[in-house]
Amino acid sequence: MNEVANNAAKSGVWGVDRPIGVAVLGMGTVGAEVVRILRDHAEDLRNRVGAPVVLRGVSVRNLDKDRGLPAELLTTDSESLVARADVDIVIELMGGIEPARGLIKAALDAGKSVVTANKALLAVYTGELAASAENNRADLYFEAAVAGAIPVVRPLIQSLSGDRVNKVVGIVNGTTNFILSAMAETGADYHDVLAEATRLGYAEADPTADVEGYDAAAKAAILASVAFHTRVTSADVYREGISKITSEDLETAAAVGCTVKLLAICERVTEGPEEGGKESISVRVYPALIPRKHPLAAVNEAYNAVVVEAENAGRLMFYGQGAGGAPTASAVMGDLVMAARNKFYGGRAPGESVYAELPIASIGETPTRYHVNLQVADRAGVLEAVAGEFAKHGVSISTVRQEGHDDVGARLVVVTHHAQESALADTVAALAELDSVTSVTSVLRLEGTEE
Amino acid sequence: MNEVANNAAKSGVWGVDRPIGVAVLGMGTVGAEVVRILRDHAEDLRNRVGAPVVLRGVSVRNLDKDRGLPAELLTTDSESLVARADVDIVIELMGGIEPARGLIKAALDAGKSVVTANKALLAVYTGELAASAENNRADLYFEAAVAGAIPVVRPLIQSLSGDRVNKVVGIVNGTTNFILSAMAETGADYHDVLAEATRLGYAEADPTADVEGYDAAAKAAILASVAFHTRVTSADVYREGISKITSEDLETAAAVGCTVKLLAICERVTEGPEEGGKESISVRVYPALIPRKHPLAAVNEAYNAVVVEAENAGRLMFYGQGAGGAPTASAVMGDLVMAARNKFYGGRAPGESVYAELPIASIGETPTRYHVNLQVADRAGVLEAVAGEFAKHGVSISTVRQEGHDDVGARLVVVTHHAQESALADTVAALAELDSVTSVTSVLRLEGTEE
Repeated sequence: MNEVANNAAKSGVWGVDRPIGVAVLGMGTVGAEVVRILRDHAEDLRNRVGAPVVLRGVSVRNLDKDRGLPAELLTTDSESLVARADVDIVIELMGGIEPARGLIKAALDAGKSVVTANKALLAVYTGELAASAENNRADLYFEAAVAGAIPVVRPLIQSLSGDRVNKVVGIVNGTTNFILSAMAETGADYHDVLAEATRLGYAEADPTADVEGYDAAAKAAILASVAFHTRVTSADVYREGISKITSEDLETAAAVGCTVKLLAICERVTEGPEEGGKESISVRVYPALIPRKHPLAAVNEAYNAVVVEAENAGRLMFYGQGAGGAPTASAVMGDLVMAARNKFYGGRAPGESVYAELPIASIGETPTRYHVNLQVADRAGVLEAVAGEFAKHGVSISTVRQEGHDDVGARLVVVTHHAQESALADTVAALAELDSVTSVTSVLRLEGTEE
Repeated sequence: MNEVANNAAKSGVWGVDRPIGVAVLGMGTVGAEVVRILRDHAEDLRNRVGAPVVLRGVSVRNLDKDRGLPAELLTTDSESLVARADVDIVIELMGGIEPARGLIKAALDAGKSVVTANKALLAVYTGELAASAENNRADLYFEAAVAGAIPVVRPLIQSLSGDRVNKVVGIVNGTTNFILSAMAETGADYHDVLAEATRLGYAEADPTADVEGYDAAAKAAILASVAFHTRVTSADVYREGISKITSEDLETAAAVGCTVKLLAICERVTEGPEEGGKESISVRVYPALIPRKHPLAAVNEAYNAVVVEAENAGRLMFYGQGAGGAPTASAVMGDLVMAARNKFYGGRAPGESVYAELPIASIGETPTRYHVNLQVADRAGVLEAVAGEFAKHGVSISTVRQEGHDDVGARLVVVTHHAQESALADTVAALAELDSVTSVTSVLRLEGTEE
């Protein structure tokens, strides 16, 4: 044991006679792995922390289920478990808002550190929980809340703390990435692939949180908060899911050298110097085309990846398993070791940093590029009429391609430069009214191009 | 200012009246960027640390060069700068062993924290320096020493502290990756590409440290130390450079769906249970074939990437700019903010963790796969004779391919299963003696296959 550890041990607070006690709330897929690691790797944990780390109890909903644990470790009374005097760190893996929120708050208010993977909770209540942590000199760690095993919260909070992050773009939901990858690969329909994903356990019985982008939006709020030193909540995140993506969308994407991914985008928007360089941030989740050569295009199946662009670091990418029991448990355990070391050595996790207080730009103020598919009559003057509508609404066209024409007409694919959402919506409405336009087949955003 | 910060400020140690003082040793490419960020982003730094961070001085070799800094900030006397009472954190960017080592030690012995990017120094003297840090409650941070802007040291030390790392494989030297990428792309010869790299500033006038793998070996030692909780120094790393790689090697690689990369490999080797599961680690740097579908195969030009395989996290990849002034400065500044926060809040960086004390396996004990190219006579019985020599030395063959035959004979490409280096060397020597073998054209290791 080194000198500092000796001093701490001598002070009688932590050491062999007073191990660091851990409570685990919830024993689902992740909780079971955390409990396994705590028990199987006790010796490594002791060496890495400096003091023994001991599991004091696990709260579960059903005591009758066999979990391979001594009965005295199991309880349904989370509140009493959190309150135990020999519990120093609480690992919250129940998910959902209540009772998780109350239990975490109780732990922090009692000066106990908390490790959580609860993105839905953090995306709304980080401010309140971080204040409890701050006021009681406790730590609140949450690496596991975003992108499973992939270290991305800690790199943003610590490694990039001396840089200026301009953009974070991630594939942070494994279920939707599995679905989109399968659709791209097999040409199958959204509903068939979703059914298959449910059968394989990649999608939950009620897949709404994943497929409608709520899960990704919560993670985007967390990423934006730490990247931009600004409090961002779920309500600040513009959100569209993938349930309207068709196999035709993926075909079209492939035809133009792209693929479709559900992206979580956190972006610093700096207006020109003529407006005084006013800064805001845009946080949004939607399916978008990205060029196949973009690093995120190769992220398939249930994998996650996050690309961070910072002023000095340039473009970084973090890739790995974004979900699952063991990968998420790895992130939880890393946080646990750090929280335990802080107890032992007297350090502190970086608290919430929201000093920048940047305003959130609405989706209407956030220009993106669009990829518009039109079914048109195959006759002279159509292109002119279509181009005219774009021009009339101030939407600048980057490229137009006309594809295969048959009895019913031709297909026009228009790719725009950056345009405001409202201007694009007006353009699309006007296009639909044109005689020469049979239908607006699809409108998808295009991301990850240099332009 | 939050409560804790208030308390610290009230204690009179740090705050507006007592900013955290920083000395920068060395003002080369990285140092100049660090100084620029310290001056241009003082307000952000103050907000992120909790107290002002002030540049006290920069030590340089030549005072006459215009660096756009007030003269009173510049000095040639590093020793006095480090010793100043108002210097709390020393950023060492001189490189080399002395005087860097003595200055860092002096800083740590005086309880000042140190941030360094000096891989050559750390790969030999981390033990000594970490002991000084420990004994004086100072921090020693070195994220910038490996892979520039890419957070990989902190993720290994902190994020994966609750996991068990089994393997770290990285492309950690930009110069050699630039050269190998250019050779692969243009078919040009090693010496021509090296000359071009030197002209473009990607290689130094004396490129030995890069092309012979010394730089990568130092980084491998650092990565292995933190990944395996074992002290590993440069001397423990088996090292081969890229100066013997020919354009034919890259052609052959391409023909078998591979590319050649200089890899830094840190691997946990666990012997079978019959030997009691004895563990050791292998740390090695050499050029190797990797399949083009391997994530590291797509890392081109001066980019770096590190793949980490851990028991629970699975396979993670970190990608970004591995060198250059601003990217490396980003990593330095992240460490600086953390060191300054620790000063302010009373925390501590995780110290050196070497409890595992795993033995280092020699290269002879480390089986790898090999790719052997032979020029052979084009006649019956050759394959049998060649296969016989492999079998005789206990080297198991995975695949054999015979390629284009002409007047001078045919080419045999043999890919082995995992084999001991000594057995392979004996096989190659025996093959060279065979009448039917004209020459052993090349022997390259093959990495990144599942087998």
